Amino acid sequence: MATLPLEVKITLSKSTDVFEPGKYEVKPCTVRTSHATKPPVDLFIVTPIAKGTYPVLLFCHGFLLPNNGYSNLLKHIASHGYIVVAPQVTPPSTSQGSRESISKVTQWLSQGLPLVLPEKVNPDISNLALSGHSRGGKTAFALALGRLDKRCHKKKKSPIRDNPNLPKFKALIGIDPVAGRAISNRGPPRILEYIPRCFNMSVPVAVIGTGYGNQSAAPLIGIPPCAPDGVNHSEFFNESKPPACYFLAREYGHCDMLDDWIADLLIFSKSGKGRDHMRKCVGGIVVAFLKTYLEGDEKDLDVIVSDPGVAPTTLDPVIYVKSEKC
Amino acid sequence: MATLPLEVKITLSKSTDVFEPGKYEVKPCTVRTSHATKPPVDLFIVTPIAKGTYPVLLFCHGFLLPNNGYSNLLKHIASHGYIVVAPQVTPPSTSQGSRESISKVTQWLSQGLPLVLPEKVNPDISNLALSGHSRGGKTAFALALGRLDKRCHKKKKSPIRDNPNLPKFKALIGIDPVAGRAISNRGPPRILEYIPRCFNMSVPVAVIGTGYGNQSAAPLIGIPPCAPDGVNHSEFFNESKPPACYFLAREYGHCDMLDDWIADLLIFSKSGKGRDHMRKCVGGIVVAFLKTYLEGDEKDLDVIVSDPGVAPTTLDPVIYVKSEKC
Repeated sequence: MATLPLEVKITLSKSTDVFEPGKYEVKPCTVRTSHATKPPVDLFIVTPIAKGTYPVLLFCHGFLLPNNGYSNLLKHIASHGYIVVAPQVTPPSTSQGSRESISKVTQWLSQGLPLVLPEKVNPDISNLALSGHSRGGKTAFALALGRLDKRCHKKKKSPIRDNPNLPKFKALIGIDPVAGRAISNRGPPRILEYIPRCFNMSVPVAVIGTGYGNQSAAPLIGIPPCAPDGVNHSEFFNESKPPACYFLAREYGHCDMLDDWIADLLIFSKSGKGRDHMRKCVGGIVVAFLKTYLEGDEKDLDVIVSDPGVAPTTLDPVIYVKSEKC
Repeated sequence: MATLPLEVKITLSKSTDVFEPGKYEVKPCTVRTSHATKPPVDLFIVTPIAKGTYPVLLFCHGFLLPNNGYSNLLKHIASHGYIVVAPQVTPPSTSQGSRESISKVTQWLSQGLPLVLPEKVNPDISNLALSGHSRGGKTAFALALGRLDKRCHKKKKSPIRDNPNLPKFKALIGIDPVAGRAISNRGPPRILEYIPRCFNMSVPVAVIGTGYGNQSAAPLIGIPPCAPDGVNHSEFFNESKPPACYFLAREYGHCDMLDDWIADLLIFSKSGKGRDHMRKCVGGIVVAFLKTYLEGDEKDLDVIVSDPGVAPTTLDPVIYVKSEKC
């Protein structure tokens, strides 16, 4: 039998398809609070339509942004075999109310979600991940930390984790997460503590940062950056315990993973070139991370970490701290 | 032959003596610029007096602090077999001039240091480490990064590393390092970039933080903290590439490793109880780190990392990222 030359074999063994659309045809839909299943807020759901049981990703949108403004990103993720549920929370998205809404959606999932999905499409609620963009990234971290408190500082009890009826998150992904406008202006709950690995949770974490997020789109007229130093991706990663991954998309901006129609309106956010690359990049990282921690398939994540050049945008640095002991 | 019971063996194998004074008798001395060897600035030197060849630690004091205000800490380190050289730089210690002074001292070491040491005490300049406290910690990082530039942003050329006559640092230790008063008020050179592991250097790094450093000693009258969030130990660790260690002395303050006579005067710095414990703790960590990266003896550092309870103060967290691949 003819064998491939060594060079070709190596290339093949390094490949990943997470940055391309997956094999599942998907359908987006909006489920209103008026629906018979009574979701606590309107939901934008993207689901595979083929018969099957799929893991679930809960996605928290950014401050003042519409949940369906991420449709390309969420379709990319869903096409790899995930049901994505994106609640629409009323502004401000970091308020106590928004965190409670997301918490209520989490409770709604097991009863409500099966009833709004296509026939023979089943959610595997035991295989649940949590994600969010910008302030929605902070909301996701706050939920995973059980920090639904109004106050800036920690409550002793964590409402999420103390409720045994709530499903457990198996993975947490912060997409350019932002904790506030500045270190001194973070708003409750103050989850950042400025101590490495201080987040008191055991969920595996991925943080995706943007290189332009800490830059102003118009410094001359004093427009502040969307993701200022000291309250952005770098801190969220530093405070996460292993396993934790970090990816910096150097040449893209804070809102470049949104759909063009909405991102084009966000003139206060400095943008990179060709958002489609960025959406595929973020989507691919999310898929690789979910495959690793929801499905036990580490291949794609390992490929990205060992060779970041496979991604459609420059990722630098890429860091993967697998365990405490290394 | 009688053998020890298992429990005793485990205890013995976990022990470390780095937190106690070492076996070498030491002598502090001050070498003035008027000395025949022409040091570029006054130096406070602590050296073992027993015949031998010892590795060298260059130590940069904090902002407006006297180099001999650290005599207990530096004696502790020297007693374990190190020659410690602490230049006195004129304020402000983070200025261009101070970094140049330290750089000149580094150049002076190989010719000058042997001539000011006790008879038959030899410095092993090829085995050189760099350390600093507070703004002096920033100075140490700036030197290791080759950032002697006046400007906030990077020069393409790095004066330190471009000079082949300069000895290379084998270890870098930041003792509650501080990059400035705030993220927006850091002063040149702006070495922090708010990107994990972005420091462009290969030297092993240890960062020791203090739990009270980010707290004001008198919040009611608006005294700012010595080591504010966003510009302190947490960022220096996050931006260091492996191998990198981190230790947080939770119950001590920014100046608690100084001698009592000077620390007592620094009423703007919130203090912990019993500075002697803190000095021994910091000294022990420095010794364990130097033994690992200057002498290839990892035992003590591994003991501290695996069982932080051996230290004389609470260390939480203790983190040791040995390599990129883990």
